[in-house]
Amino acid sequence: MSDQPNTPLLDKVQTPADMKSLSDAQLRKLADELRAETIAAVSVTGGHLGAGLGVVEMTVALHAVFDAPKDKIIWDVSHQSYPHKILTGRRDRIRTIRTEGGLSGFTKRSESPYDPFGAAHSSTSISAALGFAVARDLGGDPGDAIAIIGDGAISAGMAYEAMNNAGHLGKRLIVILNDNEMSIAPPVGAMSSYLSQLYAGAPFQEFKAAAKGAVSLLPEPFREGAKRAKDVLKHMTVGGTLFEQLGFSYVGPIDGHDMDQLLSVLRTVKARADGPILIHAITKKGKGYAPAESASDKGHATAKFDLVTGKQAKAPSNAPSYTSVFAESLLKHAAADPRICAVTAAMPDGTGLSKFMERYASRCFDVGIAEQHAVTFSAGLAAGGMRPFCAIYSTFLQRGYDQIVHDVAIQRLPVRFAIDRAGLVGADGATHAGSFDVAFLANLPGFVVMAAADEAELVRMVATAAAYDEGPIAFRFPRGEGVGVEIPQDATPLEIGKGRMIREGAQVAILSFGTRLSEVMKACETLEAKGIKPTVADARFAKPLDRDLILQLAAGHDALITVEEGAVGGFGSHVGQLLADEGVFDHGLRFRSMVLPDTFIDQASPKAMYDVAGMNAAHIEAKVLEALGIARLGKRA
Amino acid sequence: MSDQPNTPLLDKVQTPADMKSLSDAQLRKLADELRAETIAAVSVTGGHLGAGLGVVEMTVALHAVFDAPKDKIIWDVSHQSYPHKILTGRRDRIRTIRTEGGLSGFTKRSESPYDPFGAAHSSTSISAALGFAVARDLGGDPGDAIAIIGDGAISAGMAYEAMNNAGHLGKRLIVILNDNEMSIAPPVGAMSSYLSQLYAGAPFQEFKAAAKGAVSLLPEPFREGAKRAKDVLKHMTVGGTLFEQLGFSYVGPIDGHDMDQLLSVLRTVKARADGPILIHAITKKGKGYAPAESASDKGHATAKFDLVTGKQAKAPSNAPSYTSVFAESLLKHAAADPRICAVTAAMPDGTGLSKFMERYASRCFDVGIAEQHAVTFSAGLAAGGMRPFCAIYSTFLQRGYDQIVHDVAIQRLPVRFAIDRAGLVGADGATHAGSFDVAFLANLPGFVVMAAADEAELVRMVATAAAYDEGPIAFRFPRGEGVGVEIPQDATPLEIGKGRMIREGAQVAILSFGTRLSEVMKACETLEAKGIKPTVADARFAKPLDRDLILQLAAGHDALITVEEGAVGGFGSHVGQLLADEGVFDHGLRFRSMVLPDTFIDQASPKAMYDVAGMNAAHIEAKVLEALGIARLGKRA
Repeated sequence: MSDQPNTPLLDKVQTPADMKSLSDAQLRKLADELRAETIAAVSVTGGHLGAGLGVVEMTVALHAVFDAPKDKIIWDVSHQSYPHKILTGRRDRIRTIRTEGGLSGFTKRSESPYDPFGAAHSSTSISAALGFAVARDLGGDPGDAIAIIGDGAISAGMAYEAMNNAGHLGKRLIVILNDNEMSIAPPVGAMSSYLSQLYAGAPFQEFKAAAKGAVSLLPEPFREGAKRAKDVLKHMTVGGTLFEQLGFSYVGPIDGHDMDQLLSVLRTVKARADGPILIHAITKKGKGYAPAESASDKGHATAKFDLVTGKQAKAPSNAPSYTSVFAESLLKHAAADPRICAVTAAMPDGTGLSKFMERYASRCFDVGIAEQHAVTFSAGLAAGGMRPFCAIYSTFLQRGYDQIVHDVAIQRLPVRFAIDRAGLVGADGATHAGSFDVAFLANLPGFVVMAAADEAELVRMVATAAAYDEGPIAFRFPRGEGVGVEIPQDATPLEIGKGRMIREGAQVAILSFGTRLSEVMKACETLEAKGIKPTVADARFAKPLDRDLILQLAAGHDALITVEEGAVGGFGSHVGQLLADEGVFDHGLRFRSMVLPDTFIDQASPKAMYDVAGMNAAHIEAKVLEALGIARLGKRA
Repeated sequence: MSDQPNTPLLDKVQTPADMKSLSDAQLRKLADELRAETIAAVSVTGGHLGAGLGVVEMTVALHAVFDAPKDKIIWDVSHQSYPHKILTGRRDRIRTIRTEGGLSGFTKRSESPYDPFGAAHSSTSISAALGFAVARDLGGDPGDAIAIIGDGAISAGMAYEAMNNAGHLGKRLIVILNDNEMSIAPPVGAMSSYLSQLYAGAPFQEFKAAAKGAVSLLPEPFREGAKRAKDVLKHMTVGGTLFEQLGFSYVGPIDGHDMDQLLSVLRTVKARADGPILIHAITKKGKGYAPAESASDKGHATAKFDLVTGKQAKAPSNAPSYTSVFAESLLKHAAADPRICAVTAAMPDGTGLSKFMERYASRCFDVGIAEQHAVTFSAGLAAGGMRPFCAIYSTFLQRGYDQIVHDVAIQRLPVRFAIDRAGLVGADGATHAGSFDVAFLANLPGFVVMAAADEAELVRMVATAAAYDEGPIAFRFPRGEGVGVEIPQDATPLEIGKGRMIREGAQVAILSFGTRLSEVMKACETLEAKGIKPTVADARFAKPLDRDLILQLAAGHDALITVEEGAVGGFGSHVGQLLADEGVFDHGLRFRSMVLPDTFIDQASPKAMYDVAGMNAAHIEAKVLEALGIARLGKRA
């Protein structure tokens, strides 16, 4: 294999229009070339591989049958959109994907007219497609709206809400259920093949009726395998009961890797659909690349890899990841306290809870892509006497915000929120940034909000949360590796609302909240060379604030600078509110609050993103000089 | 009728334990007395009537069969919990409901051990009940968990997520679907009556099987009436297909006003349920009180009323409500711009969109209790060329927060958010307070965030939003009546990010954001008597800030005070960030930011709640004096 495969047909496709003259046989060959190119590209860049390989044929068929960008092809989550990007004018940049200045790892409206709706969080596609369909029928943009959504994503409440509404409105709308966890039993393939050939030309209602009849001939391999919440949904898709009751026409299941089936079903649907229709396609994640197919995660997200062996070239790590430090620490507390439970919304690996699930299966709950339920279920557990740790990435916690306010905070229930991926996250870019959690949590009465400065601090904060029974408590930590400090074996809980002095200095005090502390310390080194010796403190808590520490820092220095990995409205705003309330500004304080800037920052390495954000050591140094009036960066000095 | 009805049985029930010795016949009589007492109490206090009357028999049956507070009875939304409160030791305070210092209009953990989980927002009960059920089986609080949820609430995505998870976990859990929109056709009543008598003593599986068989004999009055999204769900409930596929046992439908049926079904379920079970009960909102039954809203929420006529004693209004001003204004713009659509999540009346729905049916969308979908559907509409106004109360907008960030803000789509019930809302209390929207919206890059100072300003802001195509824009306004100012007939759009001077003064500048402006002006009157003449400005925008105005106010006064109807992290925090960035604090500014305090404030009149919050004229006056060092309220003067 080469990382520049031989792709004579693909080379002629600059845009989907170039596919219109291809025969079905050529489209099959184009899919093979597209698969080879996808594998080769991801081997160079790393990224999401398995999902894209599962929809290669579907991508070709969609672009062959429909007319993008007039027709709106909306990929749910859209980490499976690499083949789509290759076919829609972005092949020349596909080896820049997820890198600074390169293509996004997701669909993005500003990147291409072929991306009518960006995505990255799950289960939004049906809502968006319905919006396009309704807009079209009201005289807006013409064209079909097609949502392609996975079996996990369609089980989320939001997708259900959208289908409920779509069935009610009755507009022409095409949803493709990309069902990639079941293997295709031979009868399914045989049936759908038969179907798609036989009924391609039949009236639509007959086509549907035949599809349903054929489905009833199937064995029921589905009843047995209900291991996970999302499998439950699959039961309902057999014969399309659920979808039909929601007002959708249902076709399937079909073999999502069989180009002939795909083409004939899509052509029929395009010609005849007169309302919402769901096409149920069975696909295989990682299809066509043995190392991905045989991997436990089906090549979900990979580093750069060797094309022949599939071996990933991961950089050696210097320190454990924050995720694993959290997970290991929680295990220890769970051993000591049988009330501790763990809740994840379909991210047992990402949150590190897999081990918890192995060891304490009865106390670990993967509720599916269902953050709203995850939070209120945790609240119920807490009200019933348990002590749940609800582990959700910062960006996904936004999905459970009302439940945090209404079910947890107002009732002051002891739910512990472990907020991973806080701050900027790197290759996943703006959609996954954890920028807002401090702002949206710290103003909730009774909430305790912490951020770990390093992995040792994280261990202390897990201990603090485990010991805190008086109400909700949250701790945030970033994506990636720790800084390599020693991890305490017997961490004692922190005193609630108390920060810590890191070093005593003069003139300027820097109050850090979170892992910018290491950048603060770097800034101090260069500042010392200039004769400035800052005081540094780690706030640990955004709520409650360490009032004494903050007022002492303010009183003892000319300047006070807060630093956090979050947007305005968070830690620095709370410090500012305290200083204002206390009249500290009345007679002058060179106060500055370093927060994420007022832009969505595109993917790059986290370090590069923090450079764009202006929050690395050099920026902290510059801010100190500006605040002290030594360099004029602001309006006043 | 009397507002102190004759209730000999009810008089003997202090707690549910007192019901255990009552015969079934006595329980029927108790329900009649409970209904009379509920009607009499609400006639005195006002409040939610229809929902409570629909569950009188269910409430009696639940407390007769189950053992609260050991068994956890969880009312979804819980505005139907007045009868429950009367039976659980709160009858002596029932005539204080929704008033200052009185009972909450919802269930509340801090109010009674019989309220195991508070509610007020919809669709949380199954998640919470599942939490209790799992906790019980892990050694937490013992007892059954019973969720009572309406047919509207169960159609929300969150409820679906919870059922999905409950079916998977398989724990004993009881969900009662309180289906109060269908009338009970005679066969249903006959079937369920037959059932409940015949099978009370039969093995549970037979009981279920018979229930299903009987259901199949029913006519299908359901297919026809699918007018609304939530009706779709009802189709699925016939025979329980949906619920059984989700892993629930299903019993029903039963007559929710037939005590014998209720008692025998609940007794059977209590004795034999070994997993999640759903009981489908048909009830009538407003049951037993003719004025409520015949009202279009079935007596959903009423003012005080005359017991005989049902006539409500509403105070005469001095000015139109903000809601109606918004709705009328939007109608005008919709007439001029066919791209304007309106989206509501099950609140066409509450948001004032009912008239829009009448006049422009094809452009108005009630998507059901589905805020997540409402926001992303709006984003899709906007991407397709429409200009949607997404009208959601501040407190419910929390449910769509991730969609606001991910689908609207990041893509900079022109969705206009009309945020009603901003700030404190009165009788609905803490759960409905609109405290956080400014904080969670104003830190989103590219968002425009406005607050109306009065109803004329609201009209200008609707015009501003209607004219703004560059990205998302939001305007907030409070519950209740305007202040009586003249409403401009031809409002021109505001300049984005520009505030307005209200009056020029000296020494202190007050920068108001929202309807506290009238309190600010009152404070100025009393301050003038003390020789202080504040400058007053209306910021209009929290984002983008009017930088020039703010810096000019800061430069020209000793003190600058911001006032807003929101929590810390919002408008005042953004102003503080600007002042810090600009170095304004370096040499002193008496800056204060008046925000909602760090507590959840219980129900009272809005004015009384703002007194508790410290945000009325007297508090603003005091804050001015404190900031100027005239009165020592803070630590420094």
